[in-house]
Amino acid sequence: MQFHFDFISPFGYFASLRIDALAAQYGREVEWRSMLLGVSVLKVMGMKPLMETPLKGDYLRREFARYVRRRGLVLRRGVDDPVMDPRSSGRAFHWTLAHQPQLAKPLARAIFHRYWVVGEDLSSPESVAALAPPGLESDALLAAIRGEESGRLLRAAVEQSMQQGVFGSPTVAVDGELFFGVESFATLEEWLSCGGW
Amino acid sequence: MQFHFDFISPFGYFASLRIDALAAQYGREVEWRSMLLGVSVLKVMGMKPLMETPLKGDYLRREFARYVRRRGLVLRRGVDDPVMDPRSSGRAFHWTLAHQPQLAKPLARAIFHRYWVVGEDLSSPESVAALAPPGLESDALLAAIRGEESGRLLRAAVEQSMQQGVFGSPTVAVDGELFFGVESFATLEEWLSCGGW
Repeated sequence: MQFHFDFISPFGYFASLRIDALAAQYGREVEWRSMLLGVSVLKVMGMKPLMETPLKGDYLRREFARYVRRRGLVLRRGVDDPVMDPRSSGRAFHWTLAHQPQLAKPLARAIFHRYWVVGEDLSSPESVAALAPPGLESDALLAAIRGEESGRLLRAAVEQSMQQGVFGSPTVAVDGELFFGVESFATLEEWLSCGGW
Repeated sequence: MQFHFDFISPFGYFASLRIDALAAQYGREVEWRSMLLGVSVLKVMGMKPLMETPLKGDYLRREFARYVRRRGLVLRRGVDDPVMDPRSSGRAFHWTLAHQPQLAKPLARAIFHRYWVVGEDLSSPESVAALAPPGLESDALLAAIRGEESGRLLRAAVEQSMQQGVFGSPTVAVDGELFFGVESFATLEEWLSCGGW
């Protein structure tokens, strides 16, 4: 199964904390796929950013706060804080996935943590390269983020996610089905537990 | 607690089949509140109808089909069938709620069933008046749907739902919180079972 997420999506972050454990319960492996909602998908959908949408934005603020309370999370970043440019993170992720696939998830977890829990802005290639996990040199990652290949890989990945029908973060793709939103995890778990319906 | 729905919303219909039983498990009563998403809310949000939104529309088609399979529902109406004008239903519901409140839920259930299960178009006042539950004369309901008061009640109700932050169907309001979507029922149940967090 695949887990599609945007690093700047709070519910994508929340899902990243649970998806591997949930899948493992049912003997499934999860491939992580970062994408860019703001830059690409909302444009295709003809929508403005969700936090700026009347009514919906307020709902998401409340849902975010409720989720944080429920799970006892401690975050230095709120949903109305300035948003980072996610391209350095996306380039780093997809370059790592292509060249050292076993390091892609550790890198993604480090990015999520640094952005949401520590609250650091990760727009610059340097800030992301500093998160290179053991086995990957920061200098090599920095050169990759700045290079042409990582941009190409990221664009192709975003395009591929959209062609699978992914339009939001998080989205889990499994058995030909899509499950959007962390609220769909209960249904996803039911799907995994009974093998679909 | 309050259950806000639009008669033309498939997930509003699905929620209507479960909300009272769910609430009763935790000793709660549910007030039903019909609203008009297409006419009012989407305009405020600056959004087009969800089924016409690229990617999102396709997701909703799949989610609808999956839900129907999962619950073994048999419906004569699909999400891409022509949509009724929901104003006769909304007027009938809110007039009944104001004058014979104990009959509002039976009327709403009859409308939902006739529209989604039987597949009948209920745009006309006559088709809705024919669904008057025992205790309410069809002629009286027809006059009410055509009258000025029911239009005023419906507009006020839609406005009130939006002022509470409701932007989609179904939305459950309880303890100052909103839970949007039938997928949020698992979280709603957790909320009800532990009294919030």
